[in-house]
Amino acid sequence: MRKKIQQLKNELTKALNASIHDDPDVLEKYAVDETSDLKGNPWLVVYAKSTQDVSITLNLCNKYTIPVIPRGAGTGVTGGAVPVSGGVVLSLEKMNKILEIDTENMIAVCEPGVITGQLQKEALQYGLMYPPDPASLDSCSLGGNVAEGAGGPRAVKYGTTKDYITGLEFVLTDGSIIQYGGKFIKNATGYNLTGILIGSEGTLAVITKIYCKLIPSPAHTLDMLIPFQSLHDAVQMVYTLLINRIRPAVLEFMEEDALTLAAQYLGQDMPHPQARAHLLIQLDGDSYQEIDQSLQTILSLGAVDPNTILVAQSPEQKERLWKARRCIREAIHAKSPVFLAEDCSVPRSKIVPFLTGVKQALTPYGLQSIMFGHAGDGNVHIDVLKNDMPYDEFKQLVPALKEIIYTEAYKFGGTITGEHGTGFIRKDALKKFASSQELSLYKRLKKAFDPNGILNPHKIIDLD
Amino acid sequence: MRKKIQQLKNELTKALNASIHDDPDVLEKYAVDETSDLKGNPWLVVYAKSTQDVSITLNLCNKYTIPVIPRGAGTGVTGGAVPVSGGVVLSLEKMNKILEIDTENMIAVCEPGVITGQLQKEALQYGLMYPPDPASLDSCSLGGNVAEGAGGPRAVKYGTTKDYITGLEFVLTDGSIIQYGGKFIKNATGYNLTGILIGSEGTLAVITKIYCKLIPSPAHTLDMLIPFQSLHDAVQMVYTLLINRIRPAVLEFMEEDALTLAAQYLGQDMPHPQARAHLLIQLDGDSYQEIDQSLQTILSLGAVDPNTILVAQSPEQKERLWKARRCIREAIHAKSPVFLAEDCSVPRSKIVPFLTGVKQALTPYGLQSIMFGHAGDGNVHIDVLKNDMPYDEFKQLVPALKEIIYTEAYKFGGTITGEHGTGFIRKDALKKFASSQELSLYKRLKKAFDPNGILNPHKIIDLD
Repeated sequence: MRKKIQQLKNELTKALNASIHDDPDVLEKYAVDETSDLKGNPWLVVYAKSTQDVSITLNLCNKYTIPVIPRGAGTGVTGGAVPVSGGVVLSLEKMNKILEIDTENMIAVCEPGVITGQLQKEALQYGLMYPPDPASLDSCSLGGNVAEGAGGPRAVKYGTTKDYITGLEFVLTDGSIIQYGGKFIKNATGYNLTGILIGSEGTLAVITKIYCKLIPSPAHTLDMLIPFQSLHDAVQMVYTLLINRIRPAVLEFMEEDALTLAAQYLGQDMPHPQARAHLLIQLDGDSYQEIDQSLQTILSLGAVDPNTILVAQSPEQKERLWKARRCIREAIHAKSPVFLAEDCSVPRSKIVPFLTGVKQALTPYGLQSIMFGHAGDGNVHIDVLKNDMPYDEFKQLVPALKEIIYTEAYKFGGTITGEHGTGFIRKDALKKFASSQELSLYKRLKKAFDPNGILNPHKIIDLD
Repeated sequence: MRKKIQQLKNELTKALNASIHDDPDVLEKYAVDETSDLKGNPWLVVYAKSTQDVSITLNLCNKYTIPVIPRGAGTGVTGGAVPVSGGVVLSLEKMNKILEIDTENMIAVCEPGVITGQLQKEALQYGLMYPPDPASLDSCSLGGNVAEGAGGPRAVKYGTTKDYITGLEFVLTDGSIIQYGGKFIKNATGYNLTGILIGSEGTLAVITKIYCKLIPSPAHTLDMLIPFQSLHDAVQMVYTLLINRIRPAVLEFMEEDALTLAAQYLGQDMPHPQARAHLLIQLDGDSYQEIDQSLQTILSLGAVDPNTILVAQSPEQKERLWKARRCIREAIHAKSPVFLAEDCSVPRSKIVPFLTGVKQALTPYGLQSIMFGHAGDGNVHIDVLKNDMPYDEFKQLVPALKEIIYTEAYKFGGTITGEHGTGFIRKDALKKFASSQELSLYKRLKKAFDPNGILNPHKIIDLD
């Protein structure tokens, strides 16, 4: 094997103008992504600078049947970029140019390494918006977002990454370069290749160019935090808003524990210590009147006490509201570096029974669980903290904990993951909860793209 | 072969509670869909009444390797439902129940034979809207819409079918039944099977249950017809509207000839005979003020003469405006039953050069071409009429005419089809304009779903 890798390295060095590394400190960095408690062992790291580099790398690795792990910014949390069984990490981070912002067609053409937040800032210069906003938007890459089908708080109004990709250039494991779609919105030609590639977690092809739909950016936003007596009231409010034609850009819920933890972490006082749940709502629109009208409607619905609602009157106040939501995972990590992070998706009306069911089932284990997320679309984050439980004991419990959470999700017509993907850490769950026919279809799909199974192996499914 | 079919028929009759027909008048009806000048030869027609019926039919046809042509309402225009090489037509039209409208989750669960307009009417009872609105919505089926990835005028604001499907139950050729997704909005589990099935034109699987996302229906709409001096001005207006944050629900353009033909057909006078192009705009919103504000903005933009703009003041006037747009194809059919119907998609900013290019290239042939469609998303309809040209002469020209149109589309960064699909009639074009790598990927995808190639053969691609 070592000889094979050396040969590959020599050939890559000859063929590429990309830089290739295998010094320990570099390999160390690419052994992990942001998945809790997971480490792999990369053999080489290739920094692609062009589609050609990607094509040559894949072609050679395919020849040597050496695994290739495509990597964007490495912010994934399901092990998607971790070389769990070794292999070549193909980093796209140096392909980070916004190639064009076509304002007339409202399309951005980007390399995969572009940081999502960067594209948003750039688009805003032209009064345009790229809506998908994963929590990691200041560090995650567009290519990674496409590979994971990333969502975010604004998904409730604007949808997720899949709703904004009009075209992709991608490379197959034999090195062939395919472009599907482009600067046009509607496409019924051939099979929907963008559809299958979005969310395929780097297991089918390597994305080298991305066409993103942009929309006119709303002129104004208004953020507010609303306390509720119970999670049920908070979730009920979501339906009340939607059916009353209020379409917030953001509808995030935080359970008592989540906000408490965040407040402690930030050294702030809880605005409403007695509240059992909060909704963080962002209204957006093109005029103040429009937004104010929505706000008045919200207050008129009777479900909210006007004296307790916290409306951000300044950018600073807005920042404070968001800080609490955004720092939850940081706060969790600070309190318990080892934790289980799940993001099941359930029908919106089942959020409460689902979370209640999970809580009850977890009680015997005496573990702290933090629940928060996207109340508007039923995608909820459940983080279970190790805290001071001995590592091995917690590690042993993890499979049981996951099983409890997924079982509840399916019980209420939901699924394993709404945003983070199957990746490596949920492969077993998929094996358990998907039918054998669905699994073998996945395998056939995988082989249709990657006959030798060299591309990000052991993610989503294992080939036999 | 005849013996094989007889055996299959006997087995099907034993196994199914569905009705099976092979009397000539039935076969005659299922030999065609709404594709101009295309006829196939069905051997049997099976009316499935349940997912089980579909499963058994596919499994048996697979055993006998007899082609199966799934059929919704047969309103397709690219030959998708035509048994071009014979086979069993599997009609889903009797599976036409709306199983549930879950108002709390704003999800409709439907059988594939449900008529799209029926679902829209039903949803409206609850103040909800299913936005996709293909021109044939009163006769086309939801299953067909999913299979074709149908769009419609409202796509510019609300997107197409693919944006509203949260889950599918489908049957593979071996008879296995798979459900992917459901009543939840976000799904990152496994591979995006809905993504690949939408627009796969019945070549990969047969869809037996559909989960559709509904949205609160806007309370008010306002329709208007605006005449322009030139197509360029009309298309320019689209950009002007969007960048000024006017988001019409509909942005349809009609070239002079298109509207003239429609007016003649309806026996009406042209509202503005001197106009070279018209835009049909629909504004929608939850309040009259909101819509009026948009209208005032439109008038203030200076691009429109307030004296020429026709605003529908009553349902009757609205109906009149829409009749003109909706009857264009009818009018074409009445004038020339044989015609070429193309629906290329190009970047919005390229509509004018594209159509101008096509016109120029068509001039030498002295054929009448009618151009209209979705100015808001660059999806344009080009119909070339045979008129009084001898059938054989026209038929001989068709390949050249198509080549001209597609070549122009690609020249401007567009594609063969935006809505109607590849089907049977554009398979050769796909072969010509897609790369060999893309084509062989399509073949591998097809085989991953349908190893024996029995499902809707000769559509999109031919297996070797």
